[in-house]
Amino acid sequence: MTTVAVDTPGGQYPIHIAPGRLDALAQSIPADATAVALVTNPTIAALYAERAEAALARTGKRVVRIELPDGEAHKDWQTLNLIFDGLLSHRYDRKGVLVALGGGVIGDMCGFAAASYMRGVRFVQVPTTLLAQVDSSVGGKTGINHPLGKNMVGAFHQPVAVEIDTDVLRTLPAREISAGLAEVIKYGLILDAPFFEWCEANAAALRALDPQALTYAIQRSCELKAHVVSQDERESGLRAILNLGHTFGHAIEAGLGYGEWLHGEAVGCGMVQAAELSARVTGFPAADVARVRALVDAIGCPVVSPDLGADRALDLMRVDKKAEGGEIRFVLLPEIGRAVTQRAPEAAVREVLALTSCLPVEQAINLDPQQASPA
Amino acid sequence: MTTVAVDTPGGQYPIHIAPGRLDALAQSIPADATAVALVTNPTIAALYAERAEAALARTGKRVVRIELPDGEAHKDWQTLNLIFDGLLSHRYDRKGVLVALGGGVIGDMCGFAAASYMRGVRFVQVPTTLLAQVDSSVGGKTGINHPLGKNMVGAFHQPVAVEIDTDVLRTLPAREISAGLAEVIKYGLILDAPFFEWCEANAAALRALDPQALTYAIQRSCELKAHVVSQDERESGLRAILNLGHTFGHAIEAGLGYGEWLHGEAVGCGMVQAAELSARVTGFPAADVARVRALVDAIGCPVVSPDLGADRALDLMRVDKKAEGGEIRFVLLPEIGRAVTQRAPEAAVREVLALTSCLPVEQAINLDPQQASPA
Repeated sequence: MTTVAVDTPGGQYPIHIAPGRLDALAQSIPADATAVALVTNPTIAALYAERAEAALARTGKRVVRIELPDGEAHKDWQTLNLIFDGLLSHRYDRKGVLVALGGGVIGDMCGFAAASYMRGVRFVQVPTTLLAQVDSSVGGKTGINHPLGKNMVGAFHQPVAVEIDTDVLRTLPAREISAGLAEVIKYGLILDAPFFEWCEANAAALRALDPQALTYAIQRSCELKAHVVSQDERESGLRAILNLGHTFGHAIEAGLGYGEWLHGEAVGCGMVQAAELSARVTGFPAADVARVRALVDAIGCPVVSPDLGADRALDLMRVDKKAEGGEIRFVLLPEIGRAVTQRAPEAAVREVLALTSCLPVEQAINLDPQQASPA
Repeated sequence: MTTVAVDTPGGQYPIHIAPGRLDALAQSIPADATAVALVTNPTIAALYAERAEAALARTGKRVVRIELPDGEAHKDWQTLNLIFDGLLSHRYDRKGVLVALGGGVIGDMCGFAAASYMRGVRFVQVPTTLLAQVDSSVGGKTGINHPLGKNMVGAFHQPVAVEIDTDVLRTLPAREISAGLAEVIKYGLILDAPFFEWCEANAAALRALDPQALTYAIQRSCELKAHVVSQDERESGLRAILNLGHTFGHAIEAGLGYGEWLHGEAVGCGMVQAAELSARVTGFPAADVARVRALVDAIGCPVVSPDLGADRALDLMRVDKKAEGGEIRFVLLPEIGRAVTQRAPEAAVREVLALTSCLPVEQAINLDPQQASPA
């Protein structure tokens, strides 16, 4: 088993990565827990809830299942409240422990419920998508959406442990593997050139779910994110570089309507756009722009953006949560393995949008993963 | 001006106590704030919002008012969401600052909104009730109610400053002054025998809103609470002693229906009951039980509880947020100025309930402050 230790202001927690971790969940439940609540959705529950419950039952503690409706559209207060209803109706006290079994939506909601229930209880993350494994496992971001913006209401709340079972990726659609890999290569691009090169060499193995390649990619991604987050829990500075590709990606997601493209697909495309913008602002070499485009393509993510119109795209970027006083700050690459945040001349942004936004919206909405991924 | 400095894990913040602080609010707004949102209710707004807005306008920053419906019945998600609606529709970013102008309900909701908006923004407390001034100013507790329990959803979130204008107490009903004074004498009882004696000598001056007496009572209460909270921000141990009278009080509030008795009234009565229980469990002297009863009476709070029936009262105590695994833990007094938390034999609790629960529920619901307070 591979373990990554994550340092936070409140202490350290482990990320365990290995096939079959689902059967070992009892190891992550604190001994003084009074009860356990398994928070999941019907899709995941059909595949894994019974195994997870059997594993948790080995603690000898009461285990209650709380199922939330599936999907980003339900990442709201009404759904969050189902967790509080469940905990209160079963009289969970402050030493009850929540277990989030699912992707990013389940992790974000279960984490926010844990942050808020009785002003804070403990929780364990069991991420079942590659994106959640490499992104949500580290950083403590939790929250729900508001009709006026995504993830606008939430908290920073660290899990007591993260259990990553690489086997569960076998039931994940190929498109979600590609979306998760976009975040993996992001860590190489912003922090670790050798890891980026390793991704170039192992793109096919990763898409084929080679267990060794996957375990290393997840481990290295978590280590790199933990390194950033340990220096900046509250996202005041350094942590912003984790948003490489997210400003362009945000415009794509919001412009098409959330859910049309997977978050990782939008970030993959957004990284190509950020690389192009870097070439114009920081002198990022054209050859490296080509490498970014080639790797995003190789992992099966789109490399061209829907054509939303530059004015609309810029508007969407300005209302992003990452904007400050209406000013857009981009994460740019001076070289592979290093990132900076800075403003960019609007003309350069428009040039990049014109160059990269050549996918008709109609076609973008009916994105065929096979077209986007030439594998 | 009197200032109490409160230490928290994240840093220090000041509590300013003086007549007229409402006109000096600009001093508490951080220089890098991008905008200010004044969160209040129509009752308080009619009295003080324009003065507060004029004071805040001196920062030169945009000031938006967000009014919430008045009362504990609205301390829910729907009302909390009005704050998020206001902040998002006015495009407040992470450097927007919230100002809570009102009593405990406004402070708790505005604080929770600040804790959750974009995963945490800064806020200033301007408590306008005596209870909020001596209780909510210190400790960082924020939250909302759930249909199955009070304050079940929330966060620990510290303000950047607290501004206490003692003049605003002049518009507060006498009953709310009495309820606030219950918390004041609580600090003496659990931590500071000389302060308890000072309260005995100054009960009349406090009820008459003597400015010097009030300022000292607020200052000493905040200092004592800050001393406790600085050692135990997350309420894992020592902080529990702040709940003296709250377990009995919780049963009264929940049993009568929230809002029938003010929280401080229930706590006042609950402290008499806790003193009686202490006499049976820790050997607290009978003469001191009499002193507690006399002072609770002198400040104008009830000293006898509604007769809910012992079984019902015990049930209500068991579902209290402070219970753990269904076990009731009481805060008891070995002597005036010192408190401990421990279990108590059920027979002793029943004896105290029988002795102190002699107010017919009908009469309790129609509580006449003049009957309760012999002033």
